[in-house]
Amino acid sequence: MSVRTPSLHRRPGLPDQVSIYEVGPRDGLQNEPAVVPVETKVEFIERLVAAGLPTVEATSFVSPKWIPQLGDAETLYPALDKTGPTRFPVLVPNLAGLDRARNVGADRIAVFAAATEAFSKRNLNRSLEEALEMFAPVVSKARSEGVWVRSYLSMCFGDPWEGPVPISQVVDVARRLVDQGCDELCVADTIGVATPGHVQDLLGALAAAGIPPPDLAVHFHDTYGQALANTVAALEAGVTTVDSSAGGLGGCPYAESATGNLATEDLVWLLHGLGIETGVDLEKLVATSTWMAARLGRPSPSRVVNALQRGGS
Amino acid sequence: MSVRTPSLHRRPGLPDQVSIYEVGPRDGLQNEPAVVPVETKVEFIERLVAAGLPTVEATSFVSPKWIPQLGDAETLYPALDKTGPTRFPVLVPNLAGLDRARNVGADRIAVFAAATEAFSKRNLNRSLEEALEMFAPVVSKARSEGVWVRSYLSMCFGDPWEGPVPISQVVDVARRLVDQGCDELCVADTIGVATPGHVQDLLGALAAAGIPPPDLAVHFHDTYGQALANTVAALEAGVTTVDSSAGGLGGCPYAESATGNLATEDLVWLLHGLGIETGVDLEKLVATSTWMAARLGRPSPSRVVNALQRGGS
Repeated sequence: MSVRTPSLHRRPGLPDQVSIYEVGPRDGLQNEPAVVPVETKVEFIERLVAAGLPTVEATSFVSPKWIPQLGDAETLYPALDKTGPTRFPVLVPNLAGLDRARNVGADRIAVFAAATEAFSKRNLNRSLEEALEMFAPVVSKARSEGVWVRSYLSMCFGDPWEGPVPISQVVDVARRLVDQGCDELCVADTIGVATPGHVQDLLGALAAAGIPPPDLAVHFHDTYGQALANTVAALEAGVTTVDSSAGGLGGCPYAESATGNLATEDLVWLLHGLGIETGVDLEKLVATSTWMAARLGRPSPSRVVNALQRGGS
Repeated sequence: MSVRTPSLHRRPGLPDQVSIYEVGPRDGLQNEPAVVPVETKVEFIERLVAAGLPTVEATSFVSPKWIPQLGDAETLYPALDKTGPTRFPVLVPNLAGLDRARNVGADRIAVFAAATEAFSKRNLNRSLEEALEMFAPVVSKARSEGVWVRSYLSMCFGDPWEGPVPISQVVDVARRLVDQGCDELCVADTIGVATPGHVQDLLGALAAAGIPPPDLAVHFHDTYGQALANTVAALEAGVTTVDSSAGGLGGCPYAESATGNLATEDLVWLLHGLGIETGVDLEKLVATSTWMAARLGRPSPSRVVNALQRGGS
């Protein structure tokens, strides 16, 4: 009798339900060296939907010149079955990207800002101020058309060039993004350096600035192994939307190893053990990540995928 | 400016100090396929001592017939420098093992019991009852000679053959081990399936049975990625001794034989981020695990070792 599900032990003070925001098809595949055929991507997303994920960030309408891995957004998005309850937000970098996304009917978008000057310069080739100015009309136009908007705020805990990022700086940029009008602000530990006290201090400061945990999502990377400990801290603070990547696909574009993203399977094991509903079928999800890993030609970095592939413990 | 240490953010209710019980040279190397030369082991332990680890479980006086990887215990133990503050407990399986350990001067031992009938049968070829009867004279003789005794209680959360392990069953066996007279009871999640609520429920039940968290150590495996989240739960309950294995030795997530040991580096990142003192120099420890990984001919499974080897984030 092998163990294939965690034993259920609730803890007081945690939410009954968590909404997992799956980033594998976008954030994951964007950071994989291989360009995956669009038919494979569509099947990947269909399998994630069948596994019960409520939200799957499907692709990015960025220039294929910059990210060839996602150059098929115009083919991919229309191929998705939108008849079910699953939401399919797409990343848009600017007004041109928003127009492309809207042309194929996207009704949920995400923009990608950073809390640090250095990352904004390197990733967007703009100062922090210029980046925020670039997003303002995108967000405003999207919302005027009834489009749901997520604003990512990356580098909230540490930055590869600036080092530790002051909480006051994160709160300032977060406040400006919220004032632009996003529906959800996603606080990201892009390089994975945070620990649970840091998470709670930042969430506390954001709440004090009028951005309470229920308006937030968290996006932790497992680069230093801290993602799940940080997730528990965020849940304790009242966050109920958590990002993760099926099989741990992808990571930070500047890391040499693609093991940065928190694996959805590891997150689901934690949440189900705590008696928190996700709607996700773990076995189907593991089968999906195993299938995808075979297509990418390398093993999944997810601990749970590897353990359950071996037949459970 | 790369990030090589976590930012310090304390959380209320956590201890100021944690004592890391390093198991790499014993639990780690015992589960590696390669037999490491004794000179390399001695250098490994010397480097762990230099990195500031307060306790290093050095070896096991088990029969070399069963565990050839540790067949050099009689050569290894006397070669260790005992002039510093570092403690060097050794595993002993029975009275013969205790005699061998005492013959070379060991003054701290550990015995290895399990909370389940199935594991006891498979690992010790004895019923749970027979195993406890075997340990009783070992513990009693050791303590009568002033030897410090740790009792491991493995399979406290799940068992590969029995599945989930009832808390009442764990408490019963724990109570008997404590009644035998151990100085420290180590509660182990040998297959890594626990989640934080399970940890707190078990620690609560043990406290109610007269075994409070300060008398315990916890030994989590990262097989399902849950070890650090579980560690935080144990610290919140009042545990201040935590087991881990330098570089995650003995726990390659991709190996069939994986045992999934929590990497000491990942634990230290968490603790130092929370402002909890360990006495450990993380850079020295990472250098040690990198050195050891080269000797074993495979990369360390520790997330922190890999991140810092790449130069930090």
